[in-house]
Amino acid sequence: MVKHHHHKILDCTIRDGGLVNDWDFSVEFVQDMYRGLSAAGVEYMEIGYKNSEKLLKGGSSGPWRFLNEAFLRDVITRKTDTKLSALVDIGRVDENDILPREDSLLDLIRVACYIKDVDKGLELVRKFHDMGYETSLNIMALSHVMENELVEAFEDINKSPVDVVYIVDSYGSMDYKDIDYLVTKFQRLLPEKELGLHMHNNMQLAFSNTLMGADKGVTFLDSSVYGMGRAAGNCTTELLLSNLKNPRYDVRPVLEIIEKHMIGMRQKWDWGYLIPYMIVGALDEHPRTAMAHLNSADRDKCVEFYDKLTSPETAPSAQKA
Amino acid sequence: MVKHHHHKILDCTIRDGGLVNDWDFSVEFVQDMYRGLSAAGVEYMEIGYKNSEKLLKGGSSGPWRFLNEAFLRDVITRKTDTKLSALVDIGRVDENDILPREDSLLDLIRVACYIKDVDKGLELVRKFHDMGYETSLNIMALSHVMENELVEAFEDINKSPVDVVYIVDSYGSMDYKDIDYLVTKFQRLLPEKELGLHMHNNMQLAFSNTLMGADKGVTFLDSSVYGMGRAAGNCTTELLLSNLKNPRYDVRPVLEIIEKHMIGMRQKWDWGYLIPYMIVGALDEHPRTAMAHLNSADRDKCVEFYDKLTSPETAPSAQKA
Repeated sequence: MVKHHHHKILDCTIRDGGLVNDWDFSVEFVQDMYRGLSAAGVEYMEIGYKNSEKLLKGGSSGPWRFLNEAFLRDVITRKTDTKLSALVDIGRVDENDILPREDSLLDLIRVACYIKDVDKGLELVRKFHDMGYETSLNIMALSHVMENELVEAFEDINKSPVDVVYIVDSYGSMDYKDIDYLVTKFQRLLPEKELGLHMHNNMQLAFSNTLMGADKGVTFLDSSVYGMGRAAGNCTTELLLSNLKNPRYDVRPVLEIIEKHMIGMRQKWDWGYLIPYMIVGALDEHPRTAMAHLNSADRDKCVEFYDKLTSPETAPSAQKA
Repeated sequence: MVKHHHHKILDCTIRDGGLVNDWDFSVEFVQDMYRGLSAAGVEYMEIGYKNSEKLLKGGSSGPWRFLNEAFLRDVITRKTDTKLSALVDIGRVDENDILPREDSLLDLIRVACYIKDVDKGLELVRKFHDMGYETSLNIMALSHVMENELVEAFEDINKSPVDVVYIVDSYGSMDYKDIDYLVTKFQRLLPEKELGLHMHNNMQLAFSNTLMGADKGVTFLDSSVYGMGRAAGNCTTELLLSNLKNPRYDVRPVLEIIEKHMIGMRQKWDWGYLIPYMIVGALDEHPRTAMAHLNSADRDKCVEFYDKLTSPETAPSAQKA
């Protein structure tokens, strides 16, 4: 018997994809995205970051990086049953920017943090929770976290009102055994919380990792249309819609978004399986070095990049020591 | 304790990748491929098809489709410990073209067939075996095979001298549960045979499926450099080299091949995660309709393609009925 876990797809194309093109998305595109995801049966759409422009010199970034409620009302003129979420980073959010949920178009606020900042993350979570929002805590870079740190953080998380706790594979370095291990651990130590997965596709494992997590009972599944997200991108929304068993899902409206917008975007901006991203994934390193390499004139020189990352003198891990 | 299964990587870039560009590979490229795979520690390189030009109107296809021993000696002037293999198709091979192994550069001859032709496949296997070759039987399109057909074929396979039996996901439609199921069944019913996996990447599952099979004890793992293979392509050689634990493996020489040759090839020829391939994978259909669509003027109209494949009147499955 297959248990029905009531999976929820959270599409984060606008938020994570914005890291690819500095949030250069037109209002029409975001409107098409919301209509398409709604028609496809996707449960949540993350429409951007709710960081503060004052706290983060955003410069020319598009409006989706600093969501503003009045602007949002111009974009989303008719709310469907697809809920809206926004992500905030520790230290980059001005709580005074956030309206109570009854005055907001947002339903879910997600707080991203590293393990060392879980206390600060949970402080934000509590405020948003008290304002009426659904909340999640997205713990980044879990492949670099030691067991004892994790267990300590779990004690605080269990005492907090957070609804969903996310396993985030920031470096795209996890395989199915890592997911199996982490999900089992999170389920055992956080029995009252819903779990989420946010995977990156450096090693072409984002979809399979998400699928395995879903089968193990993870409910919140992050994805992006055509995989558009930072560096190698994410689990694709169209693969989840095509493969999860749920009569509510229909991939066709998402194919329409891809045809109308994403194929052209992919020609303009880079994401997906590019060798420098594969290399940092396999080495379990932050993608920033690969992103810089791909923005340089030597972008196709992947051997030089590999040598730099693996030589004892120039490896990022050597610089940390 | 992790068992060491003595995995063997079989790189089939020249053979399966030739289905992308009609075997338009230069001698220099194939030589670089052999040198690079040898330096990387890859155990086998499939250097083409050994089908007969007389039996298959090849027209302008490159020489790698109809391997000829004299030509091969010009290409491979120094044999390394990376063995060479060739694939033959039932009804397309002239056995008189094949020299005894002691006079050939080839070590392994692989016979590809559908389940209904396993008897014919095993007849060829026996001949190649008697000529001294290692042999494999590659059973294609397993996602469309009924259990009873499989069990019947296994009886004949067990009586044959074939060394390796391959699970081939021709349609790129299998996920980890399918691999788990098939590998378990093959291991139980073919206890004396080594197993192999040949995956296609329509749903970005080729690498994860191969990894799961390897962990379950499958020894022969097919891959291609940068994933170059028919339609969505294969599990990539660079991901296997980066992730399998074996001190013999080194990904760097394969990165050199990618930098020198494959990035340019990918700009000229299409393979990989393209939406029509994702669609046929999710629908468990042969990729030929998607390949034709991508060769048409309407190649970016993926919604039209999806509608054609899913409407009751025009779906391939309707035409079979």
